[in-house]
Amino acid sequence: MRATLMYEAGDVRIEIVPDSRIEQPTDALVRVSAACICGSDLHPYHSMTREQGPARMGHEFIGVVEDTGSAVSTVKKGDLVVAPFAISDGTCEYCREGLQTSCVHGSFWDTQPREGGQAEAVRVPWADGTLVKLPVAADSELIPSLLTLSDVLGTGYHAAVRGGVKPGSTVTVIGDGAVGLLAVLSAKRLGAEQIILMGRHQPRTDLGREFGATDVVAERGEEGIERVRELTDGQGTRIVLEAVGHMPAYEQAYGIVRPGGTISRVGVPQYEDAPIGFNSLFGKNIALTGGPAPTRAYIERLMPDILDGSIEPGRVFDVTTALDGVPDGYRSMDNRTSLKVLVTP
Amino acid sequence: MRATLMYEAGDVRIEIVPDSRIEQPTDALVRVSAACICGSDLHPYHSMTREQGPARMGHEFIGVVEDTGSAVSTVKKGDLVVAPFAISDGTCEYCREGLQTSCVHGSFWDTQPREGGQAEAVRVPWADGTLVKLPVAADSELIPSLLTLSDVLGTGYHAAVRGGVKPGSTVTVIGDGAVGLLAVLSAKRLGAEQIILMGRHQPRTDLGREFGATDVVAERGEEGIERVRELTDGQGTRIVLEAVGHMPAYEQAYGIVRPGGTISRVGVPQYEDAPIGFNSLFGKNIALTGGPAPTRAYIERLMPDILDGSIEPGRVFDVTTALDGVPDGYRSMDNRTSLKVLVTP
Repeated sequence: MRATLMYEAGDVRIEIVPDSRIEQPTDALVRVSAACICGSDLHPYHSMTREQGPARMGHEFIGVVEDTGSAVSTVKKGDLVVAPFAISDGTCEYCREGLQTSCVHGSFWDTQPREGGQAEAVRVPWADGTLVKLPVAADSELIPSLLTLSDVLGTGYHAAVRGGVKPGSTVTVIGDGAVGLLAVLSAKRLGAEQIILMGRHQPRTDLGREFGATDVVAERGEEGIERVRELTDGQGTRIVLEAVGHMPAYEQAYGIVRPGGTISRVGVPQYEDAPIGFNSLFGKNIALTGGPAPTRAYIERLMPDILDGSIEPGRVFDVTTALDGVPDGYRSMDNRTSLKVLVTP
Repeated sequence: MRATLMYEAGDVRIEIVPDSRIEQPTDALVRVSAACICGSDLHPYHSMTREQGPARMGHEFIGVVEDTGSAVSTVKKGDLVVAPFAISDGTCEYCREGLQTSCVHGSFWDTQPREGGQAEAVRVPWADGTLVKLPVAADSELIPSLLTLSDVLGTGYHAAVRGGVKPGSTVTVIGDGAVGLLAVLSAKRLGAEQIILMGRHQPRTDLGREFGATDVVAERGEEGIERVRELTDGQGTRIVLEAVGHMPAYEQAYGIVRPGGTISRVGVPQYEDAPIGFNSLFGKNIALTGGPAPTRAYIERLMPDILDGSIEPGRVFDVTTALDGVPDGYRSMDNRTSLKVLVTP
């Protein structure tokens, strides 16, 4: 079968790989009908060394169940399913409390050596815990929006939930990528009153306004912080959702957040050490929260809004390509000529 | 009048200084009847350079109002009052929401150039917002416990409140100083089920057990983390209250906290940068919270429990001295022969 391999930074190829197949009784084999490229795929696209590659890519997909192991009971051959970006058994104490990213049997697709969503098929471990059946056909016009349940919608929602967004909240979202825009949508859905989107790509921030942003700040760094203060009586917003992962975005976050407020991070940090002492977080009683989103926990909660058309998160996709177009998709997302690429293997 | 001055690390003196007096209409002049030395006073006692000194010391005191400015209305001459460690106007939006440490007119005693609690008298700015009248006499046996409302009780309580302690919580408290022990007491008061106290000074950890600790771990670092895991089915506790402020305590905190849990810091960080990336906080969805405690916000809430004898936080004082004994008090707290020193000027 054909699949996407990243050999090192900047080098993505489509190659023939051994067919995925059932290996464990808890596996399902899924024929991928829709996948996508993630903003977080750009991190290795910038930093992967030749020694780290080649790696199978893709952690967001929808597909049709082709086969199941003997222990699988919640999905069956022919079901259309969506997979979150974290594999989880569905039964451990972390899964039961909705933190599937810490599942005791869990892992991320990105750490599965021989599987990935940007491919014709995927072996899905712990299929009962991981997969969710979709109540539509594989050619439904809702597929792009349902595909965001894999990662970017659930991740934006996780940012907002962990940030404590509630009716009347003031929120800044840092980053106009798909996750940032869906953090805007999520903050709006949770009742935020003021949503300041920080981003400099107008087509994206325009979509952000449609998703609920009340203000857009194109400036960055000190200038951006100053602009947010101007919009908030000099105080900053109570909640900042950080959807980038680079240090300047984090520095911007603690510059913007109101004393006593919360920074919620969902951009995968490209740093380990960062300021958290008296002059950054502690002195102002700032809370820092967030992490890899347990999107599995949010699928049932968010799907009805997609099915009834009240939200359209699939609007973040601006390019659709077959598998052959994936290397170009990485290039266009990297140079920001496309926002998010939908892949139909 | 006589007051405590720190000239540099290790050099504390009692000297004659100009009498404190009313300067602003919002001031009160308070004759100190009880003050104390704080664990956080030991930070400059270790690090202050000669250029930074001399500094007036002391941010916890009870005393009798001797005079008030023309605008002061909530306290009057003769009232016995307690002062929290942060000065606040009592009327700004931060004060109204209970974050007096971010008061727009606020400051800390430690940044007041010519005032401090370890002295015969103190000029108290923003007296209406800052001071709280005590319903006892200056010689009441409850004075030591009421004095902890200035800082250490409110700070331990802040750690527990920000950490989200509620009935049934599992909590680790790092640090067996006064704040750590009162974090134990606070976690108990808020209903925690398991309270693991990490400390190696048995007289202190014995008091911690009386305050509510269910387990004591004397080991530190990796060994301490391992011990806490053994006590928690390998998972760590959902909440960690960090009452030290040094980097090893923070590292211990993220080693101990359960995925999805919360680290609440009230030990003043003696670092600015620290690990918060994928391998420390982010990957496990750990929240980091805390900061300087708005103890003013907690005085009315905690005082009734002291007045009716249901808590005795004043048990953290193990030495009482006159002002002359303050330099010795710093030495004995520094070498840990005393837990907390009460000063009766």
